Amino acid sequence: MIIFKRLVIVGVGLIGGSFALALKRAGIVVEVIGVDRNCAALDDALRLNVIDTAASISEALKGADLVLLAVPVRQMSATFALVARDIAANTIIIDCGSTKRDVIAAARAELGEKISRFVPAHPIAGRETSGVGAADAMLFDGKNVVLTSLEENSAEAIARTTDIWRACGANVVTMTAAAHDAVFAAVSHLPHMLAFALVDEFAARANAKSLFSFAASGFRDFTRIAGSSPEMWRDIALNNRDALLTEMDAYIAKTQQLRTLIANRDAAELEHLMQRAREARAKWLAGELNGFRDESA
Amino acid sequence: MIIFKRLVIVGVGLIGGSFALALKRAGIVVEVIGVDRNCAALDDALRLNVIDTAASISEALKGADLVLLAVPVRQMSATFALVARDIAANTIIIDCGSTKRDVIAAARAELGEKISRFVPAHPIAGRETSGVGAADAMLFDGKNVVLTSLEENSAEAIARTTDIWRACGANVVTMTAAAHDAVFAAVSHLPHMLAFALVDEFAARANAKSLFSFAASGFRDFTRIAGSSPEMWRDIALNNRDALLTEMDAYIAKTQQLRTLIANRDAAELEHLMQRAREARAKWLAGELNGFRDESA
Repeated sequence: MIIFKRLVIVGVGLIGGSFALALKRAGIVVEVIGVDRNCAALDDALRLNVIDTAASISEALKGADLVLLAVPVRQMSATFALVARDIAANTIIIDCGSTKRDVIAAARAELGEKISRFVPAHPIAGRETSGVGAADAMLFDGKNVVLTSLEENSAEAIARTTDIWRACGANVVTMTAAAHDAVFAAVSHLPHMLAFALVDEFAARANAKSLFSFAASGFRDFTRIAGSSPEMWRDIALNNRDALLTEMDAYIAKTQQLRTLIANRDAAELEHLMQRAREARAKWLAGELNGFRDESA
Repeated sequence: MIIFKRLVIVGVGLIGGSFALALKRAGIVVEVIGVDRNCAALDDALRLNVIDTAASISEALKGADLVLLAVPVRQMSATFALVARDIAANTIIIDCGSTKRDVIAAARAELGEKISRFVPAHPIAGRETSGVGAADAMLFDGKNVVLTSLEENSAEAIARTTDIWRACGANVVTMTAAAHDAVFAAVSHLPHMLAFALVDEFAARANAKSLFSFAASGFRDFTRIAGSSPEMWRDIALNNRDALLTEMDAYIAKTQQLRTLIANRDAAELEHLMQRAREARAKWLAGELNGFRDESA
């Protein structure tokens, strides 16, 4: 494994911070430089030994051999523009954006011929807590990282990026950006929207306190992801808009179907639907529903 | 505290079994008799020392001083009919149905003038695991039990029932049956329907394995309640049908609103909604959204 002398983390939050800690734990990074528009986040990161130094982006990039972009996806375009200006030759650029087509488009627009150095990925690891205070060296341990490499990437850049994510403890899976965005619109972006909608629906009511007084563990777990960062999820919703709207429409139609079964007192079909769902979830938890096929590839 | 000499549990599952264990732990029950249409459940309950004896309902009711009905709510009517036939004088009948207007209507129809002995309640304690194997003496500890007592109940019957639930470790709250059904349609029944719908939506697709391969902890927690008993939730949906349909309509309308914000790329309102939801949930977790007011009372 190559040792990185100078790792730059742009966006020192939960993910950026956890990445820095994971590479430190793996012993493959010498110095970590943090860049963030939020000075308090940099102070916290220094205090927690997540980063060794704080710097402006142009200072930080001098001599950097690895740069991680861990900013909300709507800031990626402006961040790529800054990176493009000051990046040294042979620096690997990686990201951890939750949407990929948009981030890749921003990279192409801003990096120009330097695009070959950018190896995009999405680590499937998150928490409802945000900020560097929640950073954890083990966050990526055993988690999937979806690598959506570009045709411009050299085999060497892809191999090195794969090694980096594996050094974080992650399992690396490859996918096209389009397949990634469709899959995650369904299994991640949609549930986040549904959880935000449910909590806001109740919070807006005159009897909100009566409702929340009796919400229990089922509600708590169902809405855990509604504790996620609004800025991050606003960006994801807008940047993966078309795939997400398709999923929302499918889900609304499904919920209407279920509504019809209840309205019609169709006990048999209702139990059938619930039984299918329960069995599918049990199989999934038992690891019996694995098997990604990239149908778009 | 009065000691019960003979407790009958009709329906030896998670809730019935946990109730038996809780009263045994509290030391206020001498003998527990189990009744269930499922012989395997009775065998398990005997093996696990949840019950001391298994019997038919008419045998069990002889000399019983406390009867808990813990069957799915659609079986309550038939169960009340059997109880009405064989119940001894002065036996307290309690239930733990997740819906209350329907259970009370069934009780009135079947118990006749013995209705005064039935003190309905709903313990807000559940798990996605069902069956007596999951029974736990601590299940009700610190949980709310909503008592929806009847005008026919004597003050003594209400007081004794309150003592029983408190002996299980629960906090007893009183509410009308109508208020109960409206509140739980929102905070419990609706999220269960939404979780079942989401899992079934993905399970039915041609690319189900691709989707489930990348579902992570957010999806796991969001859908935890889709692991619940299909029979139980079918019954709840049908028995609290009107209140649930009202909630499903409100939720679908809310999700359509959120869809429109995304379709219109309304970043400000989108973040606003997510921020409101996140704050409401944080306040709820901090215990700042308590304060039930029974507006229907």
